[in-house]
Amino acid sequence: MKLVCAQNHLNAHLSLVGRAVASRPTHPVLANVLLSADAETQQIKLSAFDLSLGIQTSFPAQVEEGGALTLPAKLLSDIVSRLPEGDITLDSGSDNHYLTHLTCASGQYQVRGMGAEEFPELPTIEDGERTQLSAEALIDGLRGSLFAASADETKQVLTGVHVSVQADGLEFAATDGHRLAVVQTVDQDDAPGAKTQSSFDVTVPAKALQELMKMLDRQGSNSVDVQFDQGQVVFEWTDQRITSRLLEGQYPNYRQLVPRQFAHQVSLDRRLLLSSLERISVLADQKNNIVKMTLDQTSQQVTLAVDAQDVGSGRESMPAQITGDSIDIAFNVRYLMDGLKAINTTEVQIQLNTPTSPAVLSPIGSLKMTYLVMPVQVRS
Amino acid sequence: MKLVCAQNHLNAHLSLVGRAVASRPTHPVLANVLLSADAETQQIKLSAFDLSLGIQTSFPAQVEEGGALTLPAKLLSDIVSRLPEGDITLDSGSDNHYLTHLTCASGQYQVRGMGAEEFPELPTIEDGERTQLSAEALIDGLRGSLFAASADETKQVLTGVHVSVQADGLEFAATDGHRLAVVQTVDQDDAPGAKTQSSFDVTVPAKALQELMKMLDRQGSNSVDVQFDQGQVVFEWTDQRITSRLLEGQYPNYRQLVPRQFAHQVSLDRRLLLSSLERISVLADQKNNIVKMTLDQTSQQVTLAVDAQDVGSGRESMPAQITGDSIDIAFNVRYLMDGLKAINTTEVQIQLNTPTSPAVLSPIGSLKMTYLVMPVQVRS
Repeated sequence: MKLVCAQNHLNAHLSLVGRAVASRPTHPVLANVLLSADAETQQIKLSAFDLSLGIQTSFPAQVEEGGALTLPAKLLSDIVSRLPEGDITLDSGSDNHYLTHLTCASGQYQVRGMGAEEFPELPTIEDGERTQLSAEALIDGLRGSLFAASADETKQVLTGVHVSVQADGLEFAATDGHRLAVVQTVDQDDAPGAKTQSSFDVTVPAKALQELMKMLDRQGSNSVDVQFDQGQVVFEWTDQRITSRLLEGQYPNYRQLVPRQFAHQVSLDRRLLLSSLERISVLADQKNNIVKMTLDQTSQQVTLAVDAQDVGSGRESMPAQITGDSIDIAFNVRYLMDGLKAINTTEVQIQLNTPTSPAVLSPIGSLKMTYLVMPVQVRS
Repeated sequence: MKLVCAQNHLNAHLSLVGRAVASRPTHPVLANVLLSADAETQQIKLSAFDLSLGIQTSFPAQVEEGGALTLPAKLLSDIVSRLPEGDITLDSGSDNHYLTHLTCASGQYQVRGMGAEEFPELPTIEDGERTQLSAEALIDGLRGSLFAASADETKQVLTGVHVSVQADGLEFAATDGHRLAVVQTVDQDDAPGAKTQSSFDVTVPAKALQELMKMLDRQGSNSVDVQFDQGQVVFEWTDQRITSRLLEGQYPNYRQLVPRQFAHQVSLDRRLLLSSLERISVLADQKNNIVKMTLDQTSQQVTLAVDAQDVGSGRESMPAQITGDSIDIAFNVRYLMDGLKAINTTEVQIQLNTPTSPAVLSPIGSLKMTYLVMPVQVRS
């Protein structure tokens, strides 16, 4: 393998695939990145795979001699990121010891690799479902749901985002058992053949979707090709490909958790509420993270209060449009903040029934998002 | 105590003194900041003290009622930093429970404090030496020496910077046993009475000097008043004051370590050398941190080489002005990088005698700095 490529290209693409390099690899080759150079297409393909998440990306290079080998991902990325801008020559020689020579204006490096044949193949899907999704809808859906997935690895199916594809749009859902975020995106793209009529649902690990969101956000693509079977999902677009295993098990029937009618409703400025909660959280963190929220129908004000005994207390009020009787309810301040951060509209709406039944936050605007939070019971 | 002050003032000064708040306080009051409000001068003074380092700072406020009390430093700072810009009212009331009311446009907070009488007084110096130092000289000296002090708390006197004040300037020295940084600054300020003729030397904990450097860097002051006795040093300038205990014990006689004559000398571009070392260090980190440096008198080139067996190797060359015969010498790559980062001139000079005797790095320019590094012996 012999090729010349630009330092900034190699650097950017190494850091892209780096997210799929195993941090504690079960086999030495999984700490490596697979480089495949194709003399015909004049492209380099980089692949990394931790046996759950796989990322593959391609970019143009002057390929003098095609070939494939694997190199230590972190070491290579650390060196390349520090090299001066300009051309880099990679030459794996012909001695079969996988000692790759990297030459640039400032000097020469040799890095010892391993054979490409030791690198596991990224999953491909033969007889699966296939659909096209709009990148924008995917990004919106993920941004509004990913944060609510559980970070606790023992929670299995709850560590993923449940994605349902319908003919007319997508539904994303994530829950950690304490709160639930559901986003519905309507696919605006009516180009014939652009998408399938088949409907399906899968649960994809949050980690893979975080990478998908970052890559789509950075690179901008119109549509993403999605293939999946019972065990794997593959997202593919211009020169990029993410594969992930799917999470097994029945996803909770979350739709039945969302109340259809509400006795109380409040609309207010999202940023005002979020910044108040951020201050209140300083004191709430000292105790049990509980913030008390009072909707005052008469004064049309929402009041947030926190009481961390022995430490201090705080109280903030802000104007709001309140319908229904006045009510007191308490929440985990972190859950409210998480939801408000994932929303990007000016105003939000909160709907309630009783101090012990779920509350629903939603943006006032285009995106259809439902964020359900269980209140906290406080003794008064 | 009752006063009104600007959110941005209170926030900035709380974060200044925050560096002297004990992270694991031996007494609860040491987790607090002391607020003293003076109705006559219309100033608030904030003090924090971890029993080694003390920081005191003042700023103007509308003081309606003078007084003093202590409040939890981190909690207060966390709340104040999140408040909207504008006026903040602090009112400790008269109920003697140290419950302080903080009122701003967005709401009210109550924070429980402790009495000022429980807070230990910051050290003052009665019968000590006193001198004035130029802030610029202090900053230069600290920037060129602090990095070489030992971070290992068991190394006692080596965890500090040794400062010698002479009639004509300052000398700063720091060493961790492997390398030594010495900076001499010449005091340009010849204003009569501006400084004392007395000469003295003290060893000040690096942590206190780091804070001193940051504060001087940020606020700009012309001269700093320094007082000290056998146990304490006090730096004082416009509305600011840092106190620190001194380190006890004899500081090593470092001057005798610096060779006076050299057989080899090289001058080269500092940034070129530093960026090469940064790349080389990626591979050196994999092994024993050793970089081999070759001065080639014939080609007038410096070559850096690293060999991390089983992983890879690297080699970079750069132009240099070399006098003396060609020589090979090896160093810990971290030590070289640390020294080059502390220097800010375009060119540096390295002087050597043998591969086993100390090498001296120095900037080519105004500042008189000597950075001595012991080479590493390598079997070849």
